[in-house]
Amino acid sequence: MPSPLRESGADLTPEDRYVLIPANSAELAAGSTGHGFEAAGPRESLFFAPAEVRAGIVTCGGLCPGINDVVRSLTLTLWHRYGVRQIRGYRYGYSAFGPAPAAEPMRLDPEAVHELHTLGGTILGSSRGPQPPSVMVDRLLRDQVNVLFAIGGDGTLRGAQAIAEEAQRRNVALSVIGIPKTIDNDIPWLDRTFGFATAVNEATRSIVAAHTEASGAWNGVGLVKLMGRHAGFIAAAATLANSQVNFCLVPEIPFDLEGPNGLLAHLEARLRERRHAVVVVAEGAGQHLLGDGKDEHDASGDVQLDDIGPFLKKRFLEHLGASGLSSTVKYIDPSYLIRSLPANSFDSALCLALAQHAVHAAMAGRTNMLVGTWNGRFTHVPLALATERTRSLEAGGVMWQRVLEATGQPASMRRAAG
Amino acid sequence: MPSPLRESGADLTPEDRYVLIPANSAELAAGSTGHGFEAAGPRESLFFAPAEVRAGIVTCGGLCPGINDVVRSLTLTLWHRYGVRQIRGYRYGYSAFGPAPAAEPMRLDPEAVHELHTLGGTILGSSRGPQPPSVMVDRLLRDQVNVLFAIGGDGTLRGAQAIAEEAQRRNVALSVIGIPKTIDNDIPWLDRTFGFATAVNEATRSIVAAHTEASGAWNGVGLVKLMGRHAGFIAAAATLANSQVNFCLVPEIPFDLEGPNGLLAHLEARLRERRHAVVVVAEGAGQHLLGDGKDEHDASGDVQLDDIGPFLKKRFLEHLGASGLSSTVKYIDPSYLIRSLPANSFDSALCLALAQHAVHAAMAGRTNMLVGTWNGRFTHVPLALATERTRSLEAGGVMWQRVLEATGQPASMRRAAG
Amino acid sequence: MPSPLRESGADLTPEDRYVLIPANSAELAAGSTGHGFEAAGPRESLFFAPAEVRAGIVTCGGLCPGINDVVRSLTLTLWHRYGVRQIRGYRYGYSAFGPAPAAEPMRLDPEAVHELHTLGGTILGSSRGPQPPSVMVDRLLRDQVNVLFAIGGDGTLRGAQAIAEEAQRRNVALSVIGIPKTIDNDIPWLDRTFGFATAVNEATRSIVAAHTEASGAWNGVGLVKLMGRHAGFIAAAATLANSQVNFCLVPEIPFDLEGPNGLLAHLEARLRERRHAVVVVAEGAGQHLLGDGKDEHDASGDVQLDDIGPFLKKRFLEHLGASGLSSTVKYIDPSYLIRSLPANSFDSALCLALAQHAVHAAMAGRTNMLVGTWNGRFTHVPLALATERTRSLEAGGVMWQRVLEATGQPASMRRAAG
Amino acid sequence: MPSPLRESGADLTPEDRYVLIPANSAELAAGSTGHGFEAAGPRESLFFAPAEVRAGIVTCGGLCPGINDVVRSLTLTLWHRYGVRQIRGYRYGYSAFGPAPAAEPMRLDPEAVHELHTLGGTILGSSRGPQPPSVMVDRLLRDQVNVLFAIGGDGTLRGAQAIAEEAQRRNVALSVIGIPKTIDNDIPWLDRTFGFATAVNEATRSIVAAHTEASGAWNGVGLVKLMGRHAGFIAAAATLANSQVNFCLVPEIPFDLEGPNGLLAHLEARLRERRHAVVVVAEGAGQHLLGDGKDEHDASGDVQLDDIGPFLKKRFLEHLGASGLSSTVKYIDPSYLIRSLPANSFDSALCLALAQHAVHAAMAGRTNMLVGTWNGRFTHVPLALATERTRSLEAGGVMWQRVLEATGQPASMRRAAG
Repeated sequence: MPSPLRESGADLTPEDRYVLIPANSAELAAGSTGHGFEAAGPRESLFFAPAEVRAGIVTCGGLCPGINDVVRSLTLTLWHRYGVRQIRGYRYGYSAFGPAPAAEPMRLDPEAVHELHTLGGTILGSSRGPQPPSVMVDRLLRDQVNVLFAIGGDGTLRGAQAIAEEAQRRNVALSVIGIPKTIDNDIPWLDRTFGFATAVNEATRSIVAAHTEASGAWNGVGLVKLMGRHAGFIAAAATLANSQVNFCLVPEIPFDLEGPNGLLAHLEARLRERRHAVVVVAEGAGQHLLGDGKDEHDASGDVQLDDIGPFLKKRFLEHLGASGLSSTVKYIDPSYLIRSLPANSFDSALCLALAQHAVHAAMAGRTNMLVGTWNGRFTHVPLALATERTRSLEAGGVMWQRVLEATGQPASMRRAAG
Repeated sequence: MPSPLRESGADLTPEDRYVLIPANSAELAAGSTGHGFEAAGPRESLFFAPAEVRAGIVTCGGLCPGINDVVRSLTLTLWHRYGVRQIRGYRYGYSAFGPAPAAEPMRLDPEAVHELHTLGGTILGSSRGPQPPSVMVDRLLRDQVNVLFAIGGDGTLRGAQAIAEEAQRRNVALSVIGIPKTIDNDIPWLDRTFGFATAVNEATRSIVAAHTEASGAWNGVGLVKLMGRHAGFIAAAATLANSQVNFCLVPEIPFDLEGPNGLLAHLEARLRERRHAVVVVAEGAGQHLLGDGKDEHDASGDVQLDDIGPFLKKRFLEHLGASGLSSTVKYIDPSYLIRSLPANSFDSALCLALAQHAVHAAMAGRTNMLVGTWNGRFTHVPLALATERTRSLEAGGVMWQRVLEATGQPASMRRAAG
Repeated sequence: MPSPLRESGADLTPEDRYVLIPANSAELAAGSTGHGFEAAGPRESLFFAPAEVRAGIVTCGGLCPGINDVVRSLTLTLWHRYGVRQIRGYRYGYSAFGPAPAAEPMRLDPEAVHELHTLGGTILGSSRGPQPPSVMVDRLLRDQVNVLFAIGGDGTLRGAQAIAEEAQRRNVALSVIGIPKTIDNDIPWLDRTFGFATAVNEATRSIVAAHTEASGAWNGVGLVKLMGRHAGFIAAAATLANSQVNFCLVPEIPFDLEGPNGLLAHLEARLRERRHAVVVVAEGAGQHLLGDGKDEHDASGDVQLDDIGPFLKKRFLEHLGASGLSSTVKYIDPSYLIRSLPANSFDSALCLALAQHAVHAAMAGRTNMLVGTWNGRFTHVPLALATERTRSLEAGGVMWQRVLEATGQPASMRRAAG
Repeated sequence: MPSPLRESGADLTPEDRYVLIPANSAELAAGSTGHGFEAAGPRESLFFAPAEVRAGIVTCGGLCPGINDVVRSLTLTLWHRYGVRQIRGYRYGYSAFGPAPAAEPMRLDPEAVHELHTLGGTILGSSRGPQPPSVMVDRLLRDQVNVLFAIGGDGTLRGAQAIAEEAQRRNVALSVIGIPKTIDNDIPWLDRTFGFATAVNEATRSIVAAHTEASGAWNGVGLVKLMGRHAGFIAAAATLANSQVNFCLVPEIPFDLEGPNGLLAHLEARLRERRHAVVVVAEGAGQHLLGDGKDEHDASGDVQLDDIGPFLKKRFLEHLGASGLSSTVKYIDPSYLIRSLPANSFDSALCLALAQHAVHAAMAGRTNMLVGTWNGRFTHVPLALATERTRSLEAGGVMWQRVLEATGQPASMRRAAG
């Protein structure tokens, strides 16, 4: 059927528009010029008649600034732009589709999502804990859901893919659209994911605190652990946003701790020269330094010797003490303070755009895809492509190069065998 | 001479790397695939020996979040990365190069720019007021400046171009690099200019205030005037970042005020239905509604009938009063509160990158260009290209389309003869 | 009946506890030692049985940070501490008690006020526009309201007093408790009113902006108009909270504009010496300088020559221009941005305390009073006492003395005939 | 000599003015009406001729918002109000007066402290580590310091007292004035210390984060540890400033963990009813629950089983797991993020006042005292009085009563033998 947006004079996206993948002459030479992603946007024709749509929204995994913005904008776009009136928010992640959901779905309408964007977290609740695809599709069909929006990270998107494929196998019209949520910004083929800008902005507050603590003490070291299990984008971006970091440590670029080119020696040299230092470490950095953790788990269940933050604090104190430098190390781990924030305006606008485009895609009958951005344009990306690997910082790339420039940390600190 | 950055293992940019201009298949089909901008980045060879560089930095025009970040990062990159030791900050814009400068240049070094990024404004002072190119080049040569960084908008960049061309005419090695500063984000061939993200983020605070005031009153209208003389990017982006705006008015999309499809009628309808409304207007919107202003200037020298903000407030009150709706209009004009802020982390990182790339370009002997970003990559853009026109919102483009979706404002409000 | 709080082990306030009025030895010598206010707090005995209470809440006048906190805390304290279940929020101020209320009252319970404290403004709506006491009491009795909480300023409290007295005249048990709301902090016999701390904190942002703008220009003047029609507390407190103000102008201390000891001469001297200046003016300052305003009203309905802000801007430019100082004046009027904010934690805690004590007072059968603080203790203050005059800054007092110290502005600028 | 402030028309404080100690009728009946503190303020006569003053400023102990404000305001008041030109900032606390100071004192003047209030921390550096009074006085006399301002907590003030007494013993005119710095607000005879309001405001951010995390999960518990080794004022005030706390635990009110009236049982009941909970614990709370810590220290040097935060997290998980409630506990420890902040406007104004009054007191020849506030008036408090005990929350007092009201936590949770 023709889209109701035609009447409003909307500029509808042609079916054959693609966003190019290559961005510079080297990449162009290396690939086919026609290669690209389907452009996002409203289509002329709808697959689903709005009156027959029963939409479901589910949020999974850890908190990230902007989830509520996405839920709100999905609801408002479905309601106001397409006239969809059946929207339900499933509670506590994929467990909502399991055999014994913890809570009933909530009805979503403009009243229910009013002012929702001012609150961090997720109104729907979240959880980890996947369910078998067939069980989930059974539940969705029992609820007559024909459009599902899944907001979540890697695992969630894989789950969405499994749901979409199971539905295709059963030959039922169930449109499954992912909205990628990863505060670490580590999903490939996407410029940027929502929540990242807010996270970096808040992370710089911790760096300022570390710098303030460090400079207020004689031989003061401020140590900040930031999110990033596999990718150091938050650590690197926060470093670039605040030129007070002296050492930035990320999972992708292993570093030596000991030896003349090791972190400890460089930290000591920095203190002898300037009497304070700031170190930022992504949670996934330096894993080769940690034991298998088995015997060393702290019974408190909280801090472990395989946690790089406390490990570095301990080693800093040991090394500096042995070097005759009376020093203090102030360790800051702001994780929950960051991920529970409401989105800033940058992310809020991104959430709105992703939600608008997710609804357009769903109404046009797309499935098994996520909405993203590439070279600044909104795109449709097959779920399979986005989940096949993780995006990470490249040691030879522009961003890391600029981190080295901004911190002045020696490239030689990089671990040879890394 | 070879760059000192070679030793640090920096990933140097090949001379023949280009960033492609087209971004989607339609644009590619319309243009030559080889078209593009020179990629920014450190080069293998320097044009200037660092010990012989005498760098000057000047800031012009209105305030914009991030100017001090740029000044600081230029200084630190020149000093730490290239070993340049002669850096002077010229005071109060191009007037510093005129016959009677108000103040002596200040010496810039790491100590002078310490913590500078925490302060809004410009430590160098600013001014409007151009000088003849030959006078400016005379002064620069007298000061033995061979590298000049000019931070400013449209007029400033044209001035930088004139300086570069005068220097070329005289056949002296004076490298002139622009760092574009326009809070309105209206320079062409650039994805984004620094300060814009901070401005939009702060602008949303005014919108929240307008919404709060409007909903606290019976038939309350909140009216916010935002920056944007020729381009409505701030108004549009702030609208997309805060889904509480009902009408967004920009210079590029003229609107009818009167008549059944005019703003007044739609505002009245909104109030009758929902009892409050929020209107965002860019300062350059609706100019066709204003008189020539000649006779109507307010003697206070402040507010004028050719100021769209007070004009709309007056017309709203008149129309709603005549319609029998007892209403209040709360008018907010946050301009100085926005432009005087320090940069948020997003803009701070952008400023750092622009400054790093500006220094790389200058050291490699580039001139008569600015540093920018295109499709997310940093570029060298000829000054002539960037100043030949102004970038503006397109009525048929994706951003405006999304504004219409987010506000629900009728496309038909657009003025036919616009 | 005995209070339900007795069982929870609450520390109940004895009936004969008073908070002393005098605070220092001079005041003590001047007054009776026994003079004081009744101490606020829960009482042993209740006047109203909770099951029979029908509470009403109404908010009047301009916005002020914390109104929603008060509404929320009144509701939660009534509900959770006393078990009251009949709570209604009257809409749009005292007009709710008039002959044709704009909207029905809303039912208030814990669900309705959840997260309410995160939003500025008032969920109940507000208005000016008093009603005759007998009409209001008629309506309240028709609604069977026996406890009324009135949140508002001077006029509202006078209205509350009239309601209480009308009820006493009719001999009906209607407990009327005021919660004073004045962002200007100008109600006598109160240390501090809610919203003031938030207002001062936000006002300093405007002063920082003015300072940044002023120092970024040659002979730059930043001029900030703050709230305070009759009392300069916000202007003075913001000046003391940010030591960048050079001149602070308040209603209580008239100043000379012209002449060798006038503001213009001092401003000019400051610019000649330091090249920038910051001026803060309360909206009620310098009224003697303004005409009767009759003929000078600007047709825009917005800015008037009897508005001290634009008036000063105009006179600054005229005087400095005539003195041969090329200068710029940046004028900032942040009013709505301040009053629409949510309360900061200081005010939020104050709102909670006032609401708790208001409920305790009402349940104990007190009426015709407001809750306040005196010497840091919470008190019951008769409405008649609080509305008989306005509190204002004293020229010879400690606060103004400290403003003179902090700004360095000459005491001689004070107008002789003031 | 007569004060230079006489000429400026300052309202000078009479020598016999006292601020009364009692605040209510019960306290008055219990004490002498004449009892009080000397009122702070500028005096008619100076003890020191400004030209002969050599002032020293030292900052000790942990960071606290506002230290730099105090340093700045001391400097500006000495300089501008009294004309003192010899001001030195001693580096890294009392170690500056020891045999081998780490760094030379820095010269303080208006230029050096410009914009200093925008930065958290202390520009002078801090340290713990007392020195013998005779050594410190030796050093001060060698430096010809006759006025010393010591900014610090309990231990620092005791050190200041020792210096003052040693100077009196030697019969040298050395004025020692303390400015009390305790983020915990636990110094007696003071209404409020600087930094506390900022700390509480920031602490509420952690509580919001804990609430958001808790409500985003099924049986989610948010646990926030706040500062307060001996006094729970921050925890209590943050609880009162944010009505989302369900349990507030402070050092002064011991609680049962186990048993039917214990925290664990109440937490479990709360989760069963509402599915999320927020717990705030002061760092000094529940020490009776912790072992002697000797054998249980975590080798990481960071988290210990005698740290109440991780201890509670562990016990929550154990108990809830054993009760069959699958739950998550998110633990937040924001300490450094709070204490390193710049002061908010409330604290900034307080810092200014304390510094102004400290200078007035020193110039008038007062010594062995600190500046404080009592019943809202600024006072001189003998150091001996302020250091003889610590102020703490009273179980039967108004503040704790209001915490019980706001949280709804049962008073019976209080440990009998506490």
